[in-house]
Amino acid sequence: MRRIITATVQNSSGVLNRITGMLSKRAFNIDSITVGTSEVEGISKMTFVVDVPDESKIEQLTKQLNKQIDVLKVNDITDYSIVARELALIKVGSTNANRSEIQGAIEPFRARVLDISRDSMIIEVTGKPDKIEALVDLLQPYGIIELKRTGVTAFRRGKQPKQLQDIGTISI
Amino acid sequence: MRRIITATVQNSSGVLNRITGMLSKRAFNIDSITVGTSEVEGISKMTFVVDVPDESKIEQLTKQLNKQIDVLKVNDITDYSIVARELALIKVGSTNANRSEIQGAIEPFRARVLDISRDSMIIEVTGKPDKIEALVDLLQPYGIIELKRTGVTAFRRGKQPKQLQDIGTISI
Repeated sequence: MRRIITATVQNSSGVLNRITGMLSKRAFNIDSITVGTSEVEGISKMTFVVDVPDESKIEQLTKQLNKQIDVLKVNDITDYSIVARELALIKVGSTNANRSEIQGAIEPFRARVLDISRDSMIIEVTGKPDKIEALVDLLQPYGIIELKRTGVTAFRRGKQPKQLQDIGTISI
Repeated sequence: MRRIITATVQNSSGVLNRITGMLSKRAFNIDSITVGTSEVEGISKMTFVVDVPDESKIEQLTKQLNKQIDVLKVNDITDYSIVARELALIKVGSTNANRSEIQGAIEPFRARVLDISRDSMIIEVTGKPDKIEALVDLLQPYGIIELKRTGVTAFRRGKQPKQLQDIGTISI
C-alpha cells in the first residue's frame, strides 16, 4: 500500500542523506521524495511517498525517523483529509497543424503551455499523480520528448481533526 | 553561485542515497532536489539546485556523478535557455472578511485556491523560486500557517543548441 509521509527536519548538512540511507537500508520502495524550505527559517519539510507491504512497517519507519536528531516531526498523513499535489513538465512534439488541437486537449486538465518551439511545446500541469498520468497518456500519441515530475508534496486541509471526527474525511 | 543540475538515473534501490551521499561528502550545499519518473519506464529524472563556490567544483561533481553505474546522464543546464519551475502549497490564515482580498492579491501570480476552511485557505502556485518567495512575502501579513515546496524541476527549451548559436538564449 502507498503511504504519504511528511517530515519536518533541521536544515543541517547530510540530513537528506541520512534519511534516504535509512529508507534504502530497510528496502522501502520510494515512489517520490520532495524537499523544500518551509515557513520557518532553517527548517525544511519533506514529503515522501512509499510503497509498503503492511502498516507495521510504516510504524517502524516513522519511529526510526523520529529517533534522528535532526528530524523534528514525522507524520503519516495518508488517512487524513489532505491536499496532495505534484508538478510535471511535459515536452511534447507538436507542429503548426496540431498545436491548437493539443491546447484544446490539455485545457480540462488546467494545464498551461510554458513554451512553444517549431516542433515541440512545454506543458506544465499540477495535480495528483493519477491526473498527471492521465495527461501523459493523452499526449502520448503526439510524442513525449521529455517528462519531468517533482514528486508529491502534501499537507492536511484546514481544521482537520474536527472534520475527521464530525463528518469523516472530505476530498474535493 | 547557484547551478541547476539534471541527472537521468536508473530506478534502482539506493540510487538516491548514493547521490545524496556523494553531495554531502563533498559538502555541497543543496538548495533543493526533486526526483520523479520520466517518459521511459524504469528511468527517473532528478533535478538539483546546488550552491557552489566556483565552476571547477561543479565539473568535479558532474564527473563524479557520471562515474556512478546507475547514473546515465548528468547535465549542468544553468547556462542554457531553460524552463525551471517549482510547486508550492501555502496554507494561509483567512477569515470571511479578508478572503476575497487574498484571492485578489494572488491573482497576478496565477495562483489557485485549492481549499478553504473557516480560518484558513490553501493556495497552490508554480514558478521560479523568486516568484514563490514574492508570493509568500505578500501573504505573510495574513499569517503563513504552513508552507511546502517541491523544489525546482527543470529542462531545456525546445530547439536549444540552435537557439544558443544563432540568437543567444531566449527567456520568456
